Amino acid sequence: MFNEYQHLRIPGPTPIAPEVQRAMNRTILGHRSGEFSKVFKEAATRSKRIFQTEQDVMIVAASGTGALEMAVANVVNPGDKVLVAVTGVFGERFVKIAKAYQAEVVVANFEVGEVADPLVIKEKLDQHPNISAVFVTHCETSTGVANPIKEIAAVVKESEAVFVVDSVSALVGMDLKMDQWGVDIAVTASHKALGLPPGLALIAVSEKAWKKVNDHHGPKFYWDLRAYKKNLDNNTTPFTGPVSLVFGLEESLRLIEEEGLENSFKRHYLLRDMVRSAVKGLGLELLVEDDQKASCTVTSIKGNDQLDVEKLRKVLKEDYKIVAAGGQQDLKGKIFRIGHMGYTHPMDMLTTIAGLELALKQVGYPVELGRGVKGAEEVWANAKGISQ
Amino acid sequence: MFNEYQHLRIPGPTPIAPEVQRAMNRTILGHRSGEFSKVFKEAATRSKRIFQTEQDVMIVAASGTGALEMAVANVVNPGDKVLVAVTGVFGERFVKIAKAYQAEVVVANFEVGEVADPLVIKEKLDQHPNISAVFVTHCETSTGVANPIKEIAAVVKESEAVFVVDSVSALVGMDLKMDQWGVDIAVTASHKALGLPPGLALIAVSEKAWKKVNDHHGPKFYWDLRAYKKNLDNNTTPFTGPVSLVFGLEESLRLIEEEGLENSFKRHYLLRDMVRSAVKGLGLELLVEDDQKASCTVTSIKGNDQLDVEKLRKVLKEDYKIVAAGGQQDLKGKIFRIGHMGYTHPMDMLTTIAGLELALKQVGYPVELGRGVKGAEEVWANAKGISQ
Repeated sequence: MFNEYQHLRIPGPTPIAPEVQRAMNRTILGHRSGEFSKVFKEAATRSKRIFQTEQDVMIVAASGTGALEMAVANVVNPGDKVLVAVTGVFGERFVKIAKAYQAEVVVANFEVGEVADPLVIKEKLDQHPNISAVFVTHCETSTGVANPIKEIAAVVKESEAVFVVDSVSALVGMDLKMDQWGVDIAVTASHKALGLPPGLALIAVSEKAWKKVNDHHGPKFYWDLRAYKKNLDNNTTPFTGPVSLVFGLEESLRLIEEEGLENSFKRHYLLRDMVRSAVKGLGLELLVEDDQKASCTVTSIKGNDQLDVEKLRKVLKEDYKIVAAGGQQDLKGKIFRIGHMGYTHPMDMLTTIAGLELALKQVGYPVELGRGVKGAEEVWANAKGISQ
Repeated sequence: MFNEYQHLRIPGPTPIAPEVQRAMNRTILGHRSGEFSKVFKEAATRSKRIFQTEQDVMIVAASGTGALEMAVANVVNPGDKVLVAVTGVFGERFVKIAKAYQAEVVVANFEVGEVADPLVIKEKLDQHPNISAVFVTHCETSTGVANPIKEIAAVVKESEAVFVVDSVSALVGMDLKMDQWGVDIAVTASHKALGLPPGLALIAVSEKAWKKVNDHHGPKFYWDLRAYKKNLDNNTTPFTGPVSLVFGLEESLRLIEEEGLENSFKRHYLLRDMVRSAVKGLGLELLVEDDQKASCTVTSIKGNDQLDVEKLRKVLKEDYKIVAAGGQQDLKGKIFRIGHMGYTHPMDMLTTIAGLELALKQVGYPVELGRGVKGAEEVWANAKGISQ
């Protein structure tokens, strides 16, 4: 009976709202049909609002990494000097892509669990005035830090460089005022806070970046932003669009507008604070110590001598149906991660914490049952103003 | 009531079987989970059978063009000389992609509605012995010719070049014996004869091609075949896979095996022959005159002084709920196209032809009602051995 029963608490793919699932079941349409163009136009228009931009948002059939490459492939010429802020695996991915495109990569490395420091970015830009692009991850999914995009944008704006932000696991969960802050290229993907299956990516481009894109001549075809822009003006895509995912996207964006983008941010803050309060209550250690630096979409929790995180994840999954993520690369076996974005209600956090308490007890870690849930409930009660 | 009612008769996206639709509604899973890896492995293994290959088949989140670029991006180095057989829009697409990758492109152009001639390919290869890759479209979707892949493969095999086949709108509908014929790279996409929504592509690579791929150093990241191969060995993808489409793919491949690949080819031949017989019966002209050169997945029908094909398409859609495709580029306004691949039963052809007859009458084209259906029925009756 419980074959498909689960609480999917990884940082993407995330649970899918029933409304979105139903939308994706709409009878398939030709990608060049008038009916589909209508849905496509609506989805593209609504997408601008989540990026908080007046610029066009391009829709691409690809995973998030495809969109990261799209950003690189359209602005980086061989030999260009670029700056990448590395706060974890996804910062490193930008380094790898930029190197694949034969850029000279200046890396600003930050400690695990620490955010990218705008002052360091400024230093690097001052040291290398010919840097043509700066790449920063908004939420570093591998650690759960939220980099200070607004502050970094203010620094990059002073230079000639375009500012590229990977907001794959942050957008809709955390604020990104693309136009106001001065982000030049921002990308996201369907299977994070948008709550769709993977396979669709979104990319928005500023006027400053379009100038670079229009001058760019490196090898690219599928990633060519100009082709997407040209077709977008006719409410279509240069190549066959991911029709069913676009059906889902339009509905997902409608749900987000119904909630309100600001309310979505508030909810994600609440989810984060509930988890963090619970974790502290249970005597566990957070990878990102400073609350202000913690992502609203994913939280990393450290293992220790008494806590084998891989054993815990196994018990969480088998007995409590909670699917949590492990650590990636160097953090493998050292942390576990709880995703809390998209179609995730505060009630889901209580469920997760309750299961976590039992799983911890089951693997022999000393916990007081109910202590984590209490911590999470207190945060929610406070937020609701029912703490008295 | 009939808002979503339609007979989708374009050459992709194609109708989706209810079993496949249901499979895609399976609760979303983490792309690195054991449960998903099981489905992924099954899909990847079954995919080998449709390519008739012992080689691995890579699964990519992209449209068909993405997979075409993947083929180019992994074997073409700047300055390489490559040969492209152009029989229409999708041959031209290979030219554009190869040029984007700075190849020196030798083009073998064939007349509209004609197939690529293996003798011409041989001539070009003899003229340019340093050609490193040959690109041919299996079914040229823009005209409905089926290029003689087996015969061309025999010619290319004699050279050092790798043979790349775009089987996007042919595979599963028409025979492609990758290993036996000597095709080095073959690609297909989800929204054609596989009967899935767009957004997933498949690519298979021969040992001869792997040697080139492993030596290739041009800019690529998302398209890097080596990364897909390495991850495939662990039943996963290098970047987030299109989870819901993979659910559908596994079911679609199961349905294809249930029918039997040979039976699928026979069915597609039957669909083609029914349409062609009907078209002739109605006194219309086929773009591809020679039955032997006609694709089993899409049929192009010419307009004439008495027949405005765009007006016909409008009536077909509005009054008879039949969505037919128009001509592309130079053929716009000159032909209309009927797709007949994937989840398409011979009964669907009778429906389509019946609607077509009425629509022709409605736009004032002189037809004898029933004459087209009769022609299609006769073909089917013959095939079933009930003609007496």
